[in-house]
Amino acid sequence: MTGDKKAPIRPLAPGSVIGIFGGGQLGRMIALAAARLGYVCHIFASEADCPAAQVATHATIASYEDRDALRTFAAAVDVATCEFENIPVESVRLVAEQIPVRPDWKVLEVAQDRVQEKTFFNTIGLETAPWRRVVGQGNLARAISELGRPSILKTARFGYDGKGQVRIDDDAHLGHAWHHISGTGGGVGVLEAFVDFAQEVSVIVARGIDGAWSAFDPTENTHANHVLQSARVPARVPVFLTAAAVDAGHRAAEALDLVGLLAVEMFVTRDGRLLMNEMAPRPHNSGHWTLDACLTDQFEQCVRAICGLPLGSPERHADATMTNLLGDDVVRWLDILGDPSARLHLYGKKETRPGRKMGHVTRLVPRSVATSP
Amino acid sequence: MTGDKKAPIRPLAPGSVIGIFGGGQLGRMIALAAARLGYVCHIFASEADCPAAQVATHATIASYEDRDALRTFAAAVDVATCEFENIPVESVRLVAEQIPVRPDWKVLEVAQDRVQEKTFFNTIGLETAPWRRVVGQGNLARAISELGRPSILKTARFGYDGKGQVRIDDDAHLGHAWHHISGTGGGVGVLEAFVDFAQEVSVIVARGIDGAWSAFDPTENTHANHVLQSARVPARVPVFLTAAAVDAGHRAAEALDLVGLLAVEMFVTRDGRLLMNEMAPRPHNSGHWTLDACLTDQFEQCVRAICGLPLGSPERHADATMTNLLGDDVVRWLDILGDPSARLHLYGKKETRPGRKMGHVTRLVPRSVATSP
Repeated sequence: MTGDKKAPIRPLAPGSVIGIFGGGQLGRMIALAAARLGYVCHIFASEADCPAAQVATHATIASYEDRDALRTFAAAVDVATCEFENIPVESVRLVAEQIPVRPDWKVLEVAQDRVQEKTFFNTIGLETAPWRRVVGQGNLARAISELGRPSILKTARFGYDGKGQVRIDDDAHLGHAWHHISGTGGGVGVLEAFVDFAQEVSVIVARGIDGAWSAFDPTENTHANHVLQSARVPARVPVFLTAAAVDAGHRAAEALDLVGLLAVEMFVTRDGRLLMNEMAPRPHNSGHWTLDACLTDQFEQCVRAICGLPLGSPERHADATMTNLLGDDVVRWLDILGDPSARLHLYGKKETRPGRKMGHVTRLVPRSVATSP
Repeated sequence: MTGDKKAPIRPLAPGSVIGIFGGGQLGRMIALAAARLGYVCHIFASEADCPAAQVATHATIASYEDRDALRTFAAAVDVATCEFENIPVESVRLVAEQIPVRPDWKVLEVAQDRVQEKTFFNTIGLETAPWRRVVGQGNLARAISELGRPSILKTARFGYDGKGQVRIDDDAHLGHAWHHISGTGGGVGVLEAFVDFAQEVSVIVARGIDGAWSAFDPTENTHANHVLQSARVPARVPVFLTAAAVDAGHRAAEALDLVGLLAVEMFVTRDGRLLMNEMAPRPHNSGHWTLDACLTDQFEQCVRAICGLPLGSPERHADATMTNLLGDDVVRWLDILGDPSARLHLYGKKETRPGRKMGHVTRLVPRSVATSP
């Protein structure tokens, strides 16, 4: 998986144009960080007035498959990155013929496919829950006989936030289960052994063009209905595990020859092992606390990495808990603004839908030296 | 000076549109803070592609005297504020007929005119250097005989960053001096007795619609060629003086019935008195360190105040020194990015001119509890 070593590249000077595939809140927060460093942003998104385009100087609103629009976009920017990983790889490759896209499309390809992703983790010696590739109902039955029940059937591609996955319990109807996921991801699934984990943690690693790298303190995450609900730092896990989480993230970033950010989500088993769950080559919801508690936040770090700048200090000056504002949670905005320890972040989304990520709030408390990794 | 008491006003909800008069870096940083809270910004500026418009969703590029453009702008926003105080008061009044402008145009009027400003300070019991209103060369000679030499002759209006001021030394040619300043500000000047001050400090006070107020820790400022060079916090002055500076800022904000921010610059005399120098009803260059060292920065505080939100905590988690990047200073951007304690802020200005504010850098060090006020 190690890509070709790139020749040393001059840092992109402020005033250069950063292209961002995707118009959501991650793109918005990359754009805000880029603006602070004097860069100009150009969003490529499928929806006008999206969160990122609202704060960027330029926007191309077009289909991600529109080759003319992609070429024009490429001609207008100096470097490009993805704020979500389900951009068609072909589109990214097309743009990469004209300008650097960081991380590389090969990283995107791995992250888009659970089979490739899990194979990658295992190949570099990182443990995952036992898993099987599944390509049909018969195949599924055999995988279940090997991994047992309960287990989780997931689409290999285009799944996120719990979409395209189903739990296989004792009474599961395999035909229904297979039907549920096979429509989403092109007929390939992954069956994962059920992990009765103690905690979920994640780490975000940044890596520069020169191979320099840096990690934020791992966070402890809570999900509800497969959607991240909150992330707290420091994670309440032993120091050896936070160190192991950072090491795993770093090894993955190295093996991918990553330039940019890599977020890796992991399970902590009850017997103290780390099992890799999934990864995303971009800023990550579980790292939003860095905006308020770190010298350099994950979005600035992303900009630094993709522009060939020195990475910033990820040092943390406070303990933090980040809570997502999902759907109607956002009606509490005024109460949150009245809490002196809270920092509110809203994403400019006009329509509130159940479960939609409308914003987040970070609550800071003085740093607890003893428990930090 | 106390304005009419306003009726309680409901907070402006996120998604509302904040109009900003002026397109410079202060407007840019207000817009970035507003975006984080989910507000939409609309810049009214005379130059396209200005720093603020680059990061705002909407922009009106027109003359500040264009009444049609002003009315259309007013119809498109929910509240407006000024990012610099030399917007024509008439234009602000026009917009204020349609929507709230905060701070009020009456505050702007005082801040635009050194005669009104100094009269205001003195009226509420705040000391200034001795001063005289000057309306011609003969008048100037009498004022000099009263205040002595050296003294400083300043235009009453439209002066900033040392423009429109001249020092009157023993060998000064009064005709030349008067000619130098009288063209800038409409033929009225102010002669100020020379203050051989020990330090310059400033304080930024926020005040809400409900009269709640909050102040950032006062900073100690260094000027070069009349332009702010650096600001450090905590100021190296006795605690009683930082308390007095906050009190002075608060009294001024109260007396103006201010809604928004008020920055007051002061001299510390060698015998330990505070002399008011000037004030600006907006975020201030000497408060840029709050972006990196405070829970709530001055730009967010400005947004909170003008939108009728609760003010945020101005608590400071680090000591800080903010240094302006003037003109070619900005070529050091890459070195600054390599300093782990430095936070770089660039303003998106395409043309570097001598002395032009291109950006700033804040250097943080762990908080020194002992010397903070």
